[in-house]
Amino acid sequence: MNEENLWCLKEDGYHAERHKYYEGLFTQGNGYMHVRGSFEEGYSDAPQDEEYLRFPDNVTLEKPRHPKSKQGTFIPGIVGQHPLLKEEIVNLPYYLGLELKSAGESLDMDRCRISSYKRWLDLRDGSLHRSFIWETAEGMRLYCTYHRYISMADSHLCIQRVQVQALSGEGSLEVKPTLRANVRTNGMNHFARVVPASEPEGSLSLDILTEEGNQIFMQSVLEVSEAITWQDEHTAMIASLRGECLLHTGDQLTVCKLTAVTTDRDLEEGTVRDRALMHLGQARDWGWEELYHRHAAKWKSKWEDADIRIQGDDAAQVNVRASLYHLVRSNAEQDDRVAICAKGYAGEAYFGRYFWDTEINLLPFFLHTSPQAARNLLLFRYHTLEGARRNARKYGYRGARYAWESSLSGEEQCANWQYADHEIHITADVVYALYHYVNATGDDEFLGRYGIDILVETARYWCDRVDWNPEGYGELLGVMGPDEYLPFTRNNAFTNRMVKFSLEQTVACLYNLQHSKPDGYAAVVERLDIRPDERELFRHTAEKLRLPYDSQTEIVPQSDDFAQYADLEFDTLWTDRSRPFGHFISQERNYRSKALKQADVLELMLLFPQEFTREQMKAAYAYYEPITTHDSSLSAAVHGIVASWLEHKEEAEKLLQRVMAIDLSVEKKGAAEGIHIANCGGLWQLIVYGFAGMASAMWSENLHLQPRLPEGWEEIRFQVVWRGERYRVTVRPDAYEVNKLNGGEAVASQTI
Amino acid sequence: MNEENLWCLKEDGYHAERHKYYEGLFTQGNGYMHVRGSFEEGYSDAPQDEEYLRFPDNVTLEKPRHPKSKQGTFIPGIVGQHPLLKEEIVNLPYYLGLELKSAGESLDMDRCRISSYKRWLDLRDGSLHRSFIWETAEGMRLYCTYHRYISMADSHLCIQRVQVQALSGEGSLEVKPTLRANVRTNGMNHFARVVPASEPEGSLSLDILTEEGNQIFMQSVLEVSEAITWQDEHTAMIASLRGECLLHTGDQLTVCKLTAVTTDRDLEEGTVRDRALMHLGQARDWGWEELYHRHAAKWKSKWEDADIRIQGDDAAQVNVRASLYHLVRSNAEQDDRVAICAKGYAGEAYFGRYFWDTEINLLPFFLHTSPQAARNLLLFRYHTLEGARRNARKYGYRGARYAWESSLSGEEQCANWQYADHEIHITADVVYALYHYVNATGDDEFLGRYGIDILVETARYWCDRVDWNPEGYGELLGVMGPDEYLPFTRNNAFTNRMVKFSLEQTVACLYNLQHSKPDGYAAVVERLDIRPDERELFRHTAEKLRLPYDSQTEIVPQSDDFAQYADLEFDTLWTDRSRPFGHFISQERNYRSKALKQADVLELMLLFPQEFTREQMKAAYAYYEPITTHDSSLSAAVHGIVASWLEHKEEAEKLLQRVMAIDLSVEKKGAAEGIHIANCGGLWQLIVYGFAGMASAMWSENLHLQPRLPEGWEEIRFQVVWRGERYRVTVRPDAYEVNKLNGGEAVASQTI
Repeated sequence: MNEENLWCLKEDGYHAERHKYYEGLFTQGNGYMHVRGSFEEGYSDAPQDEEYLRFPDNVTLEKPRHPKSKQGTFIPGIVGQHPLLKEEIVNLPYYLGLELKSAGESLDMDRCRISSYKRWLDLRDGSLHRSFIWETAEGMRLYCTYHRYISMADSHLCIQRVQVQALSGEGSLEVKPTLRANVRTNGMNHFARVVPASEPEGSLSLDILTEEGNQIFMQSVLEVSEAITWQDEHTAMIASLRGECLLHTGDQLTVCKLTAVTTDRDLEEGTVRDRALMHLGQARDWGWEELYHRHAAKWKSKWEDADIRIQGDDAAQVNVRASLYHLVRSNAEQDDRVAICAKGYAGEAYFGRYFWDTEINLLPFFLHTSPQAARNLLLFRYHTLEGARRNARKYGYRGARYAWESSLSGEEQCANWQYADHEIHITADVVYALYHYVNATGDDEFLGRYGIDILVETARYWCDRVDWNPEGYGELLGVMGPDEYLPFTRNNAFTNRMVKFSLEQTVACLYNLQHSKPDGYAAVVERLDIRPDERELFRHTAEKLRLPYDSQTEIVPQSDDFAQYADLEFDTLWTDRSRPFGHFISQERNYRSKALKQADVLELMLLFPQEFTREQMKAAYAYYEPITTHDSSLSAAVHGIVASWLEHKEEAEKLLQRVMAIDLSVEKKGAAEGIHIANCGGLWQLIVYGFAGMASAMWSENLHLQPRLPEGWEEIRFQVVWRGERYRVTVRPDAYEVNKLNGGEAVASQTI
Repeated sequence: MNEENLWCLKEDGYHAERHKYYEGLFTQGNGYMHVRGSFEEGYSDAPQDEEYLRFPDNVTLEKPRHPKSKQGTFIPGIVGQHPLLKEEIVNLPYYLGLELKSAGESLDMDRCRISSYKRWLDLRDGSLHRSFIWETAEGMRLYCTYHRYISMADSHLCIQRVQVQALSGEGSLEVKPTLRANVRTNGMNHFARVVPASEPEGSLSLDILTEEGNQIFMQSVLEVSEAITWQDEHTAMIASLRGECLLHTGDQLTVCKLTAVTTDRDLEEGTVRDRALMHLGQARDWGWEELYHRHAAKWKSKWEDADIRIQGDDAAQVNVRASLYHLVRSNAEQDDRVAICAKGYAGEAYFGRYFWDTEINLLPFFLHTSPQAARNLLLFRYHTLEGARRNARKYGYRGARYAWESSLSGEEQCANWQYADHEIHITADVVYALYHYVNATGDDEFLGRYGIDILVETARYWCDRVDWNPEGYGELLGVMGPDEYLPFTRNNAFTNRMVKFSLEQTVACLYNLQHSKPDGYAAVVERLDIRPDERELFRHTAEKLRLPYDSQTEIVPQSDDFAQYADLEFDTLWTDRSRPFGHFISQERNYRSKALKQADVLELMLLFPQEFTREQMKAAYAYYEPITTHDSSLSAAVHGIVASWLEHKEEAEKLLQRVMAIDLSVEKKGAAEGIHIANCGGLWQLIVYGFAGMASAMWSENLHLQPRLPEGWEEIRFQVVWRGERYRVTVRPDAYEVNKLNGGEAVASQTI
């Protein structure tokens, strides 16, 4: 297979019913902004501004709106208030618009006569390409090609180029660049003011004020190969220009649209308008080539850090790169006021919210490829500690309680109380992530400067949240673990272990601080107003918090009451395994039955592998896998890693396929509502922790591997940053090699 | 105290902040229609058509809208679709409007100079009276009196009379009768078309089409003592006339407004307009006096059946009569397509829905005062069996599952899944009520004709709903019992006992039918398609369904897992016991703690008293009462009855006060959002089952009493219908007497 096939996601012919899937999968972005992979000319019968009331249903199971197409333009940090869903990311005006018309016939992929269609996303530089031949009703054959990218180097800029070549026939071609604010988010209009404008020499702009008071400014400049006179054709919500030219056989029209987008949240000085103009001016000074070169170089450098090269499985290679592409794209490199939303800023589902995915599923990838990004993700939690404090207060507790679904402030945004109220492990997950970051990077200072506040405040919350049973043990009642199909359990093994860990680390951190930096400790005590008896309370609670298992437990129970739930006959109920199990059972029945949505005990074992015997792991896998529906996209990768550890090779390979299919299966259209970004992080973990067998930096000081490659994989190669040093890891079925970079010296290599 | 004080609810002076309370408490009605006790002229700063999105929050704890006033006009059966709350009763146009203006000054109780204010509801005939002196800015002193009633005899008619007498001064008086459709229900407009009209001789009408397609027609005719020329002043949503006259000192103007209301759901022939005109014509033929006489006679007869005469406690006397008044008013005598909604058609809260209140709290009163009404309530459940079947199917079960919140069709309307999904006891409550009806009335035919369908279809549901544990016992998991503060329990004692009862009766009923009427049985088997093995399944499930207690259990547990919930320190948490406990704790914490919203095990003991020893009852009361918050209005009466049975006299009397305060306490404004109609039924039960100690007809073939009157009560007297015969019961502290009526022969009397 040539290099292109290992790097390009290609659409397999034109299929109208796959629009939404490719819109999600082909999302482009650069951390600052993201745009779904929609066609420049839009779609017939797919209005983007339908008004409706979206309910806070179960996103996993609900039937999505917009059967045909949903455009999406997202800038992390620009949010609006939805009356039912709470704070949601705003779907901003669609700025890619470039509509063509020939002799009155609008280009419409579904209605026009189209042939030789091709589209592909080049993962190397995140550029999207399309070409086809349009045979117009008037008899022209027009060869149309589209190219676009969102600059990774100049994050406010999007560059588009459209070429139309008359293969035969002649006639007029009308070109209509647009900036469209007739866009609603989950049925809501979030725009308080829309001002379209233009200048006759070929520029158009949209000045937006959102209901939350954010300003967004978009300006496009057009460059055309033929002399075109632009006329404006604005409506209240749409800025547009119209120009026309005559094409004869052999003629080619090239239209370049350069768009700058700015908001009042940007970390730059100046008005949104001035800055947009500045970015446009700079780009024109550089010229198209230099602009592209800067962009491509940035992507190249990111791929050097992030890529996993797989030899012996080309299909896996391109699929894995697709996931890595979305991980890299989703990360806001410079901005620690936002994190990575559950759909990777590639759709309206999950409303741009931040879940535990960040800490548990995404963080490892960033820890070992881009520690600065990992640091930002933790800083985001630090910055939102005040919101977490408000959450705790709202529930009547002291300290800080992280939101199950966080937006900008950290206050709870989850509109379904069963998750918001009961999925409390998120608060401990943040602490786990904090230690994972410190252990993986060696950035010990982070603990004393930021982490300590998180530790003490969350410990306070836990001490209030714990109930004490008559035997003197602390319990966590009314808890939903990672398995969201049991909302109300007693002493969930995963949750209790994570909370115990969190409290233990708080105690240890305070102790270490007191003994290593007495002054620093005194300052922390004063700042956080730590009472003398509080440390003892933390210690006591950490010690006495009940775990529903110990090293002798044969099958670690998901919770103390797990045995009391009902058994199900899956084969009778789940008659079509290509659809989620949740479609075949009522929530009411599901909530009282042993049918897991996702890994729960196995997730615990993944995070604390050293605490379980191989027999326990084996027993847990054998018991839980058959009753786990994997209805959550977070589940398959965890099972895959554990399967790999247990040398269940076939199972692990099946799970690898399942993980890759979550976004990439054309049949399942998994990416239609956005990218399952946690699963992308899970795929990285499956390869690195599972197949390469890298020991978690949480529990291993040294970079250590234990490869178990899938059948047919000849070699995988990736880089990891480990405690400040970058290494190249090469794993073959029978050996592995670790080379320290910047010098290239091999620090470890082993034959197995 | 004179008779009037024992029959009239009097407002104690004018207090603007009590508008809503009296609007609820003074609701008038006749089963067919109901109108809250608002002032004829409306209120300043209290628009009735605010648009907002009401969320399906916890009605018990949410902060109500409309701080000042909410008018309410309800016809059971006229419903609309709310996007969040589902089907709700429509607040219809306000037809009482009669607005006064003197020399440009509108009468407004909050802004005008008012003195000698009096208002009272006369419970004898449900008439509402108001009088006051209005000193106008121009110096007139006007003595205004208002009287109105909704005819109990002619159910489509409302009669109003307003008199204005000039005590001193002279000037013009403007009179403006209105029919106002500028009314929203819980923030929603349900009117698709509103057509106001009038005729110059003094009549006005409003023709309404609701969004659901119902027609409502209202027509008022006016009769005035002075010659007044009416001019219409309609707006899009309001029909109104304006007339003026000049008053000199001593002059008196009388305005009578006679309004007829009809809908397309009425059980009458003809168009809504024709019928309204017919009712108006008939009324005018009768004349005012005859019209009133018919009405008053009907009320008199109802009071004969329903009254409880209490000697020795005048305060209790009038309070008890207030509850009986609302019970009588709420019942739609002739219409088995509706039941009695949770707020007694006296407010928008609970959306006009039917809960288990009907079966458990209201039915006993109707069983023993108006068996035909009781029969209608059960027929309502029979008619909605198809909706119950759809509910079962929706959850994936066979048979029929009654809705936790029912509207017209029987389909589930509860928008909060924790109640809708888990409060399954409603389905068994219907069966309990069915047997209660049959046992109390002796109407055995009802079982074979209607009941059998309910029995078999609900039994089918239960057999699907039960999970089987490894020991071979049936369990009900994921259940909310009557105590709504524990949403997700295992084998709730109340629920499991009720379900066991329900299944046992199904088995018995089929057996009896087979042996007493083989032909009838064969027809039932065919109609309901009863499989040969199904009866055995019903029997087996009835037998094996687990109860979390037996006769040896010291403290009957609320559920199998009750002991595992957390203990609370009530005194620390509940710092103001005048407010609901739910205001002092988050739902999350509440859901995992031993703090009951209402009686659960005690409710079980109330329904199955013969199955528990006195020691068990005593232990249950001692254990549960201190951890029961009585946040539900259904709770206090149950505790009161059990306290009375246990001879906890002081407790029982305190609970009596608590029960009476629920709607009647001026401080708590309990009736503001509507009447707690279940509590009214509970009050009847507290007196009849508790203080008079009448044995439940469920378990006693004979009318049997065991009086334990509260301190100071010298005598109570009431009528009961028992198996088709009517009795007068007289209870004194040391004796009771039962007299069969229609003959007056004393069939039993006993001295204790």
